[in-house]
Amino acid sequence: MNIKQFIPALEWLPKYTKKQFSGDLSAGLTVGVMLIPQGMAYSMLAGLDPIYGLYAVTLPLMAYAFLGTSRQLAVGPVAMVALLTASGIGGLAEAGSGQYVQLAFGLALLAGVIQLLLGVFRLGFLVNFLSHPVISGFTSAAALIIGLSQLKHLLGISIPNSEHIHEIVLAAAQNIRDTNPYTLALGLGGIALILAVKRIHRAIPGSLLAVLAGILIVWGFGLTGQGVKIVGSVPSGLPSFVAPQLGLPDWQALIPVALTISLVGVMESIAVAKAIQARHRDYKVDANQELIALGAANLFAGFFKAFPVTGGFSRTAVNDQAGAKPGMASFISATLIVLTLLFLTPLFYYLSNAILASVILVAVLGLIDVKEPMHLWKSNKTDFYMLMVTFVATLLVGIEKGIGLGVILSLVMVIYRTTKPHIAVLGQVPGTRTYRNLARFDHLIEKEHLLIYRFDADLYFANVSYFKDSLEELVQQKGAALKAIIINAESVNNLDSSAIHALEEVIDENRKRGFEIAFTGVKGPIRDAMKKAHLIDKIGDNRFFLTIQDAVDACDAHCQRAEAGDYEHQDLAVQTNV
Amino acid sequence: MNIKQFIPALEWLPKYTKKQFSGDLSAGLTVGVMLIPQGMAYSMLAGLDPIYGLYAVTLPLMAYAFLGTSRQLAVGPVAMVALLTASGIGGLAEAGSGQYVQLAFGLALLAGVIQLLLGVFRLGFLVNFLSHPVISGFTSAAALIIGLSQLKHLLGISIPNSEHIHEIVLAAAQNIRDTNPYTLALGLGGIALILAVKRIHRAIPGSLLAVLAGILIVWGFGLTGQGVKIVGSVPSGLPSFVAPQLGLPDWQALIPVALTISLVGVMESIAVAKAIQARHRDYKVDANQELIALGAANLFAGFFKAFPVTGGFSRTAVNDQAGAKPGMASFISATLIVLTLLFLTPLFYYLSNAILASVILVAVLGLIDVKEPMHLWKSNKTDFYMLMVTFVATLLVGIEKGIGLGVILSLVMVIYRTTKPHIAVLGQVPGTRTYRNLARFDHLIEKEHLLIYRFDADLYFANVSYFKDSLEELVQQKGAALKAIIINAESVNNLDSSAIHALEEVIDENRKRGFEIAFTGVKGPIRDAMKKAHLIDKIGDNRFFLTIQDAVDACDAHCQRAEAGDYEHQDLAVQTNV
Repeated sequence: MNIKQFIPALEWLPKYTKKQFSGDLSAGLTVGVMLIPQGMAYSMLAGLDPIYGLYAVTLPLMAYAFLGTSRQLAVGPVAMVALLTASGIGGLAEAGSGQYVQLAFGLALLAGVIQLLLGVFRLGFLVNFLSHPVISGFTSAAALIIGLSQLKHLLGISIPNSEHIHEIVLAAAQNIRDTNPYTLALGLGGIALILAVKRIHRAIPGSLLAVLAGILIVWGFGLTGQGVKIVGSVPSGLPSFVAPQLGLPDWQALIPVALTISLVGVMESIAVAKAIQARHRDYKVDANQELIALGAANLFAGFFKAFPVTGGFSRTAVNDQAGAKPGMASFISATLIVLTLLFLTPLFYYLSNAILASVILVAVLGLIDVKEPMHLWKSNKTDFYMLMVTFVATLLVGIEKGIGLGVILSLVMVIYRTTKPHIAVLGQVPGTRTYRNLARFDHLIEKEHLLIYRFDADLYFANVSYFKDSLEELVQQKGAALKAIIINAESVNNLDSSAIHALEEVIDENRKRGFEIAFTGVKGPIRDAMKKAHLIDKIGDNRFFLTIQDAVDACDAHCQRAEAGDYEHQDLAVQTNV
Repeated sequence: MNIKQFIPALEWLPKYTKKQFSGDLSAGLTVGVMLIPQGMAYSMLAGLDPIYGLYAVTLPLMAYAFLGTSRQLAVGPVAMVALLTASGIGGLAEAGSGQYVQLAFGLALLAGVIQLLLGVFRLGFLVNFLSHPVISGFTSAAALIIGLSQLKHLLGISIPNSEHIHEIVLAAAQNIRDTNPYTLALGLGGIALILAVKRIHRAIPGSLLAVLAGILIVWGFGLTGQGVKIVGSVPSGLPSFVAPQLGLPDWQALIPVALTISLVGVMESIAVAKAIQARHRDYKVDANQELIALGAANLFAGFFKAFPVTGGFSRTAVNDQAGAKPGMASFISATLIVLTLLFLTPLFYYLSNAILASVILVAVLGLIDVKEPMHLWKSNKTDFYMLMVTFVATLLVGIEKGIGLGVILSLVMVIYRTTKPHIAVLGQVPGTRTYRNLARFDHLIEKEHLLIYRFDADLYFANVSYFKDSLEELVQQKGAALKAIIINAESVNNLDSSAIHALEEVIDENRKRGFEIAFTGVKGPIRDAMKKAHLIDKIGDNRFFLTIQDAVDACDAHCQRAEAGDYEHQDLAVQTNV
């Protein structure tokens, strides 16, 4: 434990060289240039004036650069978190009202506090509970909702804010005759430009070009007179320190959405950071430290007039491609935004909402994941259904409930799967000391007097009766010739007290019927649990074998002696306690 | 599927012989004699007049005898379910009021419907989610609450009905000066008599003796004049068909407690049935059929003026000891109760509440389980804490919430345990083809260029990052000499799509660094999952080995050839796809 662990910047800053600076300068400027249109667009997506998106990429960016473990991650507004913000506070206040803005600040603050607490109490592992199919289904649905929410800006019609897809579609269908052709042309032009530029080279800031072209066109052709909606005057100057003006009921109402944003935000961030880090390997991404860093970023967002932020994919990729090494690039990006806020905001007067919508639409287009469900349909039906349920639930009942349902469902499946696990009866591979599942391989040798039983799950309260019943059924099938039962525990990674009870019962019952019981493949932690419960004493030290063959040999020897009338329990031992 | 499967009685009734009848007669009469005091006592525990306890052991008993799979199980009122009834409807109506009685009937009906549905939809496995420590902690706490609830009858003082232990204790402390010495003497005498008789022989109906002696003493010494409370006139005649008179809100309010009673009832019943069946083995206890049979019993209870019933331990044990084979014994018990209802109810006029309390107190004394927590403290700390949390929660927040908390907590622990599973690096046992955990055994042989990694859990979304991180750490520790990684998957019983993604990443990354990757101990279901996801093609069919030694030999051969410049990927195969 030292201070450098908590402030990773103290590790790399003193070693910083001039040579590194050139890479960071180029990366920082490129990302800064991307942040201007993206920040404003995602701010609009969150239901806020564009200026708050620029505020969000000043101090929060710097806070992360100091505290984060990833050296390329670009923190700022991202589409998913902006959507969660809009859906979370949309029900609490009118979009654009003063109360709405305060709630957005409060949400960032609360998400920051939650992330800090999760990080400090080392609960970063919680993000692991978001499984791949749940994330994929949720992201596609959210992208669809985001895309549809931009229809009003693209068409220039009025659609009420909603996270319910049918409401959006219905309102759009009703008002589609009011479509403003200039707005639509502008938006489609923006999309085409961004996509075209992307094809030429990833590092060219297509969205900034679209923004600049859009401003020139609206101004040059006087399109405001044709009903094209523009951003209007953007205040200049830096964000000041303001504590969100909210009452206790407001804070309470924000808790569920703040929790969702905390977890989704850090999950997205860590996924991006790990993907990039995998190609560098000179540092480690730590989930708990990431939570602390993102928490600090969101605290600054909340106190300096911004909405929740997290690490975004596209900008991080640019950071990495431009050769950014340490967090210095983020300082440079933030500085560029500060200069923009101080001197360039009047330029954005003629920026149209349609252009911002085109920036959002291109960004979310890449989030809709069609390959994954198709792949899962072929490779894993359970996970496919999990993805679809999450997708449909997110579309129908809303974003937070959709992801919540997905998480709970995937945990229930984990439990359910272990209640009736796979079991196998083993036979010898001819000419070897190896044993395999009789149901899967031909030509295995099965001895009449031996039952070699493998239980493929941790043995615990929810499956002990299945364990007992299935073993009993196999014993009955074997019939009168059976002399010994060998339990292969190589797949058992945990034994709880219900399992200990069950094993005691199984051993007592089968010994009463005169069967020998032996164990193989019992792993260390299982031996420990058995020892503590005095089960090893009960079974007998000398009935644990290193390999199945050892157990088979011992049982064979014992059975022959038993038939010859020379019954001696203690002689069964071959290899003990290894 | 045939009709006998659904009505097991059709299987055994046609084969019924005179010889069996003598055993059944004796068992049936003994249990019937036990049922009279127990039925009345548990009815009092449920907050009802004693007569309903007698009604509960007429038709419900016969319904179970027809449909149940156990041939010894004696169904009727039991202490736990009576307590759940009292605590569940105590908050909805005044004990003893007409509405309270209707709610008790309705509760039986609803529990019956739920049990029938669970059985028909084959959800009997749900009872497995009640783990041993949760059941033990819950039972002990409930027994304590039951015992304390009888203080008022034992002392002859007034204590309000409550399932909160502190309220009972407080009220008892306040009113203890009002203790009626005759009542107390009668109760303590009853307890002493029942315990003493039990010591002599289990089959002597001690509680009936206590009841009879109590009646004689109260009548002979005219104790009603001394303030001893008596049952008073018990109506004679059989229960008539009456649908519970309840409104929709009443039914809704009953749902949670009906669910708890359904599951707790069937769990208790199945536990008893299985314990007895283990000694007979000529039939099988089926959880789903038990649910159907108990459901039918509770339906009859609900429609014929009784409260919820289930299989009880002590009476079942008597059935078994007296040699009862098929359900005939239950018909005989029920017939005895019918005769009692028709002709003997006037006898119970002088039966005192204190005597009924003594019957209950002796019954619940045996339910308080001190051995199990002591045993768990030594053998399994996690399960010990689980037991204590359930015990304390049941005492403090109530019966249903206590058991609910226990179940949820034990499922959370199951998940939690797999997020950071045990892992092992393996080394060779000298002179054998066997490999074991380097951290546990001395003198194992570890090769510098080989990492043999065993992951002791199912690989799924919640632990994939732990899998990747821990493997990466081990690779770093091995350093420059490392040439090949052997993943021993013998402990992995499931792979979800997140795990497939993780494996792809691990393979790609480590191949890029020039490491060979091989797998051993991959079980059938895992091979299937890998095949479907095309992971076997990616890894290469020839990199799956039957034993660790085979993989080691192949890697060694490959490394030598690679050093000699004769690098040929396809030559690694030794044994393929087995």
